[in-house]
Parts: sequence; structure tokens; C-alpha cells
Amino acid sequence: MKLYLDCIPCFQRQALEAARMVTDDEEKQEEILRRAIKELLDLNWDRRPTEIAHKIHGMVKEMSGDKDPYREVKKKYNDLALALYPALKEQIKRSNTPLLTAVRLSIAGNVIDFGASSNFDIHRTIDEVLVKEFAISDYKKFVERLERARKIIYLADNAGEIVFDKLLLETILSRYEIGKIIFVVKATPIINDAMYEDAIYVGIDKIPNIEFMEIGAGSDSGITRESKTFLDMLKESDIAISKGQGNYESLSNVDGIFFLLMAKCPVIARDLGVEMGDIILKGS
Amino acid sequence: MKLYLDCIPCFQRQALEAARMVTDDEEKQEEILRRAIKELLDLNWDRRPTEIAHKIHGMVKEMSGDKDPYREVKKKYNDLALALYPALKEQIKRSNTPLLTAVRLSIAGNVIDFGASSNFDIHRTIDEVLVKEFAISDYKKFVERLERARKIIYLADNAGEIVFDKLLLETILSRYEIGKIIFVVKATPIINDAMYEDAIYVGIDKIPNIEFMEIGAGSDSGITRESKTFLDMLKESDIAISKGQGNYESLSNVDGIFFLLMAKCPVIARDLGVEMGDIILKGS
Repeated sequence: MKLYLDCIPCFQRQALEAARMVTDDEEKQEEILRRAIKELLDLNWDRRPTEIAHKIHGMVKEMSGDKDPYREVKKKYNDLALALYPALKEQIKRSNTPLLTAVRLSIAGNVIDFGASSNFDIHRTIDEVLVKEFAISDYKKFVERLERARKIIYLADNAGEIVFDKLLLETILSRYEIGKIIFVVKATPIINDAMYEDAIYVGIDKIPNIEFMEIGAGSDSGITRESKTFLDMLKESDIAISKGQGNYESLSNVDGIFFLLMAKCPVIARDLGVEMGDIILKGS
Repeated sequence: MKLYLDCIPCFQRQALEAARMVTDDEEKQEEILRRAIKELLDLNWDRRPTEIAHKIHGMVKEMSGDKDPYREVKKKYNDLALALYPALKEQIKRSNTPLLTAVRLSIAGNVIDFGASSNFDIHRTIDEVLVKEFAISDYKKFVERLERARKIIYLADNAGEIVFDKLLLETILSRYEIGKIIFVVKATPIINDAMYEDAIYVGIDKIPNIEFMEIGAGSDSGITRESKTFLDMLKESDIAISKGQGNYESLSNVDGIFFLLMAKCPVIARDLGVEMGDIILKGS
């Protein structure tokens, strides 16, 4: 997905939020925001949003000397989601459509996205998403693909949210014969995106047949979502499940991926042709 | 109210929205946004938000050659609110607490604020605000002041919203002996703020004993909300009723004003110590 002009002020809001995570000093916050604005002005805007976000957040980390401004936020939402886990597990078990309920819960978990907004209510979102109509649903195709799948690539999005992903993967494993799941997390901290340590913390490693893969965000060196190595891996998998806006922004033009997300910003909503707050299961 | 750092990206969002009102050309939109960003970088941020908003919107008007980018939006919401008027009038009439209902509706109308967000639903907001608890309510004091009042100054906010203000003023006039109402509108176009022509269009001039006053927004020459002339007029009135965020930003430190608004941005919410979406009747 290309960058929309709306992303430019949004990156600054993100930079400010990150600055507030690392310092209470308003002068320092202003300094970080002004630097973010200058960097944005100097950039060519004909890039992917994720790439620019990576630059801006890298700058905040550099200026603050804090490599992981969202450390506490990530722990908080991992803990909060873990506390919800038993009840949600029970809810899936009791459901007449367990897989669909698990899909819905996994999309509800996608609201825990500090890139989009820090102003959300996970409990209310769960209630809403469990009954909300999908704005885009390729659920039937999703099920057909799972029935034939042996190898899954699962692109995680945020800390906290990965507990909901764990529920979805467990539900999938209980119904289909999956031999291998590659769970993709970020190699370096960016906003509240899930990393390997988060996955371990919430027990993703306890899922049978799971393997982990770390990818760089934005223009990191090494394997990124846009790199040939990764795109080839996607092709080799039987099904790729992608969570959230960032993965959609990077991979929306790639065939064969199922995107599960909530549209939390006007730009993503416009790109998908849906309304803000809509829930999406879009796949091909 | 002072400017918060959150206002800086928000001004850019406003500039972009205004740019989109005047042109479909994305290059021109980018040019306007980049210019807004440069102007913001050059400014000292130790100013009132309304003053900076005025500069930014002035720049959009200058660059686009359109003196009133929100012309159509204002007409649209004047018409929409006029269409609602008969039913709302009836609702107030049938209410056990007509004045309170009129106050609530007037606050609901405050959602028509393109400075805060262009993403609102007036019908849903009316339903919500009619039953929502006030986060701050000086209603008792408001009524006591109205009982003794002969002269009201009413600071309007947005086009469309003024139809709801008309209902409130009519309700006040039917219950209290008011000799004079000064209805304050903007002298020059700024976002979708109500001007004299909007007031005439929706029939505010049909309210008995009404007079109009035009004030400049931000750093306009002439009388502004912050000018001594205007502050003296406020003191001379028996009650001042102020609608919306912009008036609150300019006058929150002035005693004796009743602020009726919905908190539609995190900065206003923080300043008032309330949550986003909360409704406020705050007076002294």
C-alpha cells in the first residue's frame, strides 16, 4: 500500500506518543516532535508507510536513548490478554462455530495497536467484534485453504494481540492436520509490535509444531516483509495469515495471503473500501 | 488554554482536509500540507491553538485562492440541521425538562465540528447525548444565572450547530425574561465556523431581541475573543454562553462564562479532566 498524505500527521502523533513514553520532559518531547517533523519534510513521501514509520520511531529511540519505548505497554497488554485467555478459550469451546469465533477474537485483539491509537477498550471491542458483520469476508475460502494446508505462515502484529492469535492457532490445530506453523515476529522493537520475547512470554512456543521467524521492520537490514527471501517463503507455505494494518500495508499487493484486521485508520479503511472500525478477513 | 504538542499534527490534518475541499489534485494537496508543516516548524508553539489554526487555514486559503473552503460543508450541515429542527422542537416541547433537553441537543450539535473531526454521525450523537451523563455539569448554576439574566451573550461555534443553538435560545426565551441576546459569529471564514450568513440562513434573526456581532478568529484585526473590547462586553452581560472547543480554548481562563461543548479531542479532554466524547456544561 502506498503512503497517503494522512499518514504524515499520523507519524508525528506516533512520534509524540513514543516521546511521552520515554520522557515526561515537555521540552524534550517538543524537541523530538520537531525533529520528526523535519525528517518528514526532508523525505520523499513516495514510500511505504511502514518504511517511514520505521525511520521516525528509529529517530525517537536514538534521541531518547531508549531502544524500546513501548516495553511497558507491551508487557501490560500481554498480561491483560493472558488474564482474558481462559475465558476466551472457554468461549471458543462453547461456540457453535469455534473457528469463526477464534477468527473474530483474533481480529478483536488487533485493536491493541499503538500505531493506530492508544485510545481503545479491549473488553468492549471483544463484545462488538463477536457479533459485528464482516465488511469483507473470505471466510469460506479461508476454511477451504486450511483444509488443504500442512504449513502455515502466521504474521503476528502486536504484543497482547498475540494471545488472541494463540487461541486462533490452537483452534486451527484442533481441527486441521497442520504439520508446521511459522510464527513471524519483529526482530527489533517498533511501536508495540510483538517480538520473540513476547511470543515466549505468552506461551506461543507451547503450540505444537511451531517455529519462529524474526523479520526486520521497515528498512532494517536482513529479511523484511518485502524481501525476496520472505516473499518466496510465503509462496512455499500452504496458507499465509497476516494480522493487522502494518502487514497489510507491506503486503497488500501480494497474492495468496489472508489478511485479518480491524480498519483502525481512515487510510487503511479507504484503501480497503470500508469504514473505520470495520472488521476484515480478506484473502485470495 | 495553551497549545499542547498534540495540536501540531492535528493542524496538519486540518490543513490536509481543507486542501482536499479545494482541490482533487494530490500534488497540490501535498504542496499545501508541506507548506503547513514548514509554517508550523517556523512558529513558536507558545501560543493559543486558535491563533495557529487561523494562520494555517489562512495559508490554505491563500494557496488555493479559495477564501471559504468549507462553504459547501457549511451549507450541507445547515440544511441537515434545519431538516431536523421540527422534530427536535417537538422533542423539547414534550420533554419533562425542556431546558435541559435543549441544552443537551445544543451540545449534541457541537459534534458538527470539522476542526475536531469530519467523521461524525449527528443522528447517533443526538441519541447518545440525550441520555448521557454530564462529565461536568454546572446546570443548577446555569439555571440560577438565567433566572436573573436580562442580557445574554451567546458565542456560536459551527454552521449546522447553530440550528441547535436556535432551539436552545428559543427555549430560554420561552421561560425567562430576556431583553437582549447578542449572537456572536465569525467575521471571516475559518473551518466550518458559523458566520452571519449562516445565522441568517437558519433563521437566527427571527429570534426576538437578537443582535449579531462578528468577531475575528485568531489574530484577525478588529475585535477578537481575546480583545479588551470583547472581554468588557462579556463582563457587561448577565450571562455568557459559549459553544464548542475553539471558544473554550480562547476563553477558558475568563470567569463568568458557561461553556457548553462535547470534548472531541484528547487535548480538550485532558485540559478539562474528562474523557473524549464527554459532554460538558462548565460555568462559574
